Amino acid sequence: MSVLVMKFGGTSVATLDRIRRAAKRVGVEVAKGHDVIVIVSAMSGETNKLVGLVEDTSPLFDAREYDAVVSSGENVTAGLMALTLQEMDIPARSWQGWQVPVKTTSAHASARIEDIPPANITAKFAEGMKVAVVAGFQGISPEGRITTLGRGGSDTTAVAFAAAFGAVRCDIYTDVDGVYTTDPRICEKARKLDRIAFEEMLEMASLGAKVLQTRSVELAMRYKVPLRVLSSFEEMDDAAGTLVCDEEEIMESNIVAGVAHSRDEAKMTLVSVADRPGIAAAIFTPLAEAGVNVDMIVQNISEDGRTDMTFSCPTNQVARAEKAMEDAKAKGEINFHGIVADTNVAKVSVVGIGMRSAAGVAAKFFRVLADEGINIQVITTSEIKISVLIERKYMELAVQALHDAFELDKAS
Amino acid sequence: MSVLVMKFGGTSVATLDRIRRAAKRVGVEVAKGHDVIVIVSAMSGETNKLVGLVEDTSPLFDAREYDAVVSSGENVTAGLMALTLQEMDIPARSWQGWQVPVKTTSAHASARIEDIPPANITAKFAEGMKVAVVAGFQGISPEGRITTLGRGGSDTTAVAFAAAFGAVRCDIYTDVDGVYTTDPRICEKARKLDRIAFEEMLEMASLGAKVLQTRSVELAMRYKVPLRVLSSFEEMDDAAGTLVCDEEEIMESNIVAGVAHSRDEAKMTLVSVADRPGIAAAIFTPLAEAGVNVDMIVQNISEDGRTDMTFSCPTNQVARAEKAMEDAKAKGEINFHGIVADTNVAKVSVVGIGMRSAAGVAAKFFRVLADEGINIQVITTSEIKISVLIERKYMELAVQALHDAFELDKAS
Repeated sequence: MSVLVMKFGGTSVATLDRIRRAAKRVGVEVAKGHDVIVIVSAMSGETNKLVGLVEDTSPLFDAREYDAVVSSGENVTAGLMALTLQEMDIPARSWQGWQVPVKTTSAHASARIEDIPPANITAKFAEGMKVAVVAGFQGISPEGRITTLGRGGSDTTAVAFAAAFGAVRCDIYTDVDGVYTTDPRICEKARKLDRIAFEEMLEMASLGAKVLQTRSVELAMRYKVPLRVLSSFEEMDDAAGTLVCDEEEIMESNIVAGVAHSRDEAKMTLVSVADRPGIAAAIFTPLAEAGVNVDMIVQNISEDGRTDMTFSCPTNQVARAEKAMEDAKAKGEINFHGIVADTNVAKVSVVGIGMRSAAGVAAKFFRVLADEGINIQVITTSEIKISVLIERKYMELAVQALHDAFELDKAS
Repeated sequence: MSVLVMKFGGTSVATLDRIRRAAKRVGVEVAKGHDVIVIVSAMSGETNKLVGLVEDTSPLFDAREYDAVVSSGENVTAGLMALTLQEMDIPARSWQGWQVPVKTTSAHASARIEDIPPANITAKFAEGMKVAVVAGFQGISPEGRITTLGRGGSDTTAVAFAAAFGAVRCDIYTDVDGVYTTDPRICEKARKLDRIAFEEMLEMASLGAKVLQTRSVELAMRYKVPLRVLSSFEEMDDAAGTLVCDEEEIMESNIVAGVAHSRDEAKMTLVSVADRPGIAAAIFTPLAEAGVNVDMIVQNISEDGRTDMTFSCPTNQVARAEKAMEDAKAKGEINFHGIVADTNVAKVSVVGIGMRSAAGVAAKFFRVLADEGINIQVITTSEIKISVLIERKYMELAVQALHDAFELDKAS
């Protein structure tokens, strides 16, 4: 029997009516003969509410308790979806992460899935169950405690189930009808892509295009899971949405596939760090141990044995990063004069596999920003992307100017 | 080490401020040297919200999915309480029912606790943990699915933990400062009792005095768990609240301890039932199997081989009761002309151990209602209580008149 994975995000299950609409889509796939695994997020707003409660209770929270609290939203949706399917006479039941079990690492609040033994769910399919509804975003640690996979983790849950069950496809239903060249709320010329390569999607996702969680794309790429992003608010259509697939399956493409942006980035500078061999390790090891996701790193030229070290991280990890640095200083592992946190920045990037073989993309990028009078604070590049940190108020302007300059409104 | 169980109801954990206030009370008991097990309900309103979602999705819901959904409210509070205690530097962690594990029967939505192996929590106490915060109201079935204990089940969770851990006492923190002779919202002369016998409390609880869940009192009586009901909104005071205890520990008492009432009762009549030996069993067996909690039963005098059978059950079980009766009729197990459900009734009762040795309580009860012009629809009595069903609009009047007639505003 062929297994299909369908994932419904928070806005697609925000009300009982929307859950019913999603359940109807599941019913269509069941009628086609699939055994369906449905992965659900929390009803939209619920997870934010729970995170707010945790942060208000304890700013430097115990991540094990955070996970126990915030995972509850998905449990609610999973039960409601199973009940809705049962009302449609489709045999269904809900599963919480620990019941499957979705085995993860112990890295609470950002755990990784290690194994999904399919036996329990497969046995129920064999008994005639047609739909397994699984609470996304969560799992169980080797210690038997509840873990979560980080925001957007339900996408990763969906892809991991598709890989574990050898699913024919993983459909990600969301509130947008596919992947765009950039955020349509910022740039009205944004255009929907029919296909995008895994690598490009990976960069887009990690750069703040919030359509898919980064790790879900990594996992889909590794296990060659055909991944489709589509809207749960439009008519059903087998050709709808954007297919995320191998580079070879895309006949032609623009040099640049899209422009991504992220507001959720802070710039931190350690001022006047005593410079010595191994100083980078001494700084970034405690940050990693504190669970800070460092993104861009810039080290100034050393002067009189001291230097400034700048890095970026998600804004909600600034307090944690500061604490890790002060602790390392107290232990004598590093020495610096001060920490400056700047949350008034944004990241803007262009992404495209075509950049590999096309010269001058970086030069054009920098010229476009210079023409708009936008100062670049930090730069990083990879084979298929260029990212900069700029003052946040220029973010929309930069995205629109880059979208125009690279002619992303026109299909290749 | 002595274990103390403290249970906080929904209004006592309704906001983060109230959770902090509750945590301070826990801190005081920890400082006295207790290992504390805290049982928490969902933040007030949450469980009703979840039940509403389930009922709107599926009126005749699969109780397994109901349990998966409605148990999530307690998980949130447990995590938040553990975080609050940690912020006060008290070593604490949260436990969900399946993690303890709280082993229950498979009777979803009204499961009974069968066993609470203390090993996991005891091991953590031995490691230095001071407070185990446990999500109330929930457990795990032999099939590994989440169960709930029925509304108010967190009281039962608390008493069961007190029994399993040999606790010195079980303190039930709620929004009232003790057990009253009747509902103070209905009768302003209601008086707080310092002590009440287990048996009396049991009748009061089962008759709708919503201070404690019935099964929690049964359990406390069986395991001789000293049970204290007190307000989480008043100053801490070791003599506060009402102690629920053995009859012998109460020196003197009124003949009647209290007047209880319940709005949540429907009267159902099977009209013109074919009467034959075994007909009561044929009616009430399918009702029991459908999970309908039948309370009062009255059978009319048989005429021409047919009779009317009247019973009462909670209003939210009327649809289920009707379905069970129609199904039994369809199978030929019973035969009747129609079902009449009357949800416009209320139950009023007087309770007191002193009734055993005092004559005339029933006569006085009926005379009081007659003097107020209130018609009695159904009567049941036990050794220590008298209950009647009356039209709902007379409920307050009946309670006040009985409270006056039995002089409950005066201590004995």
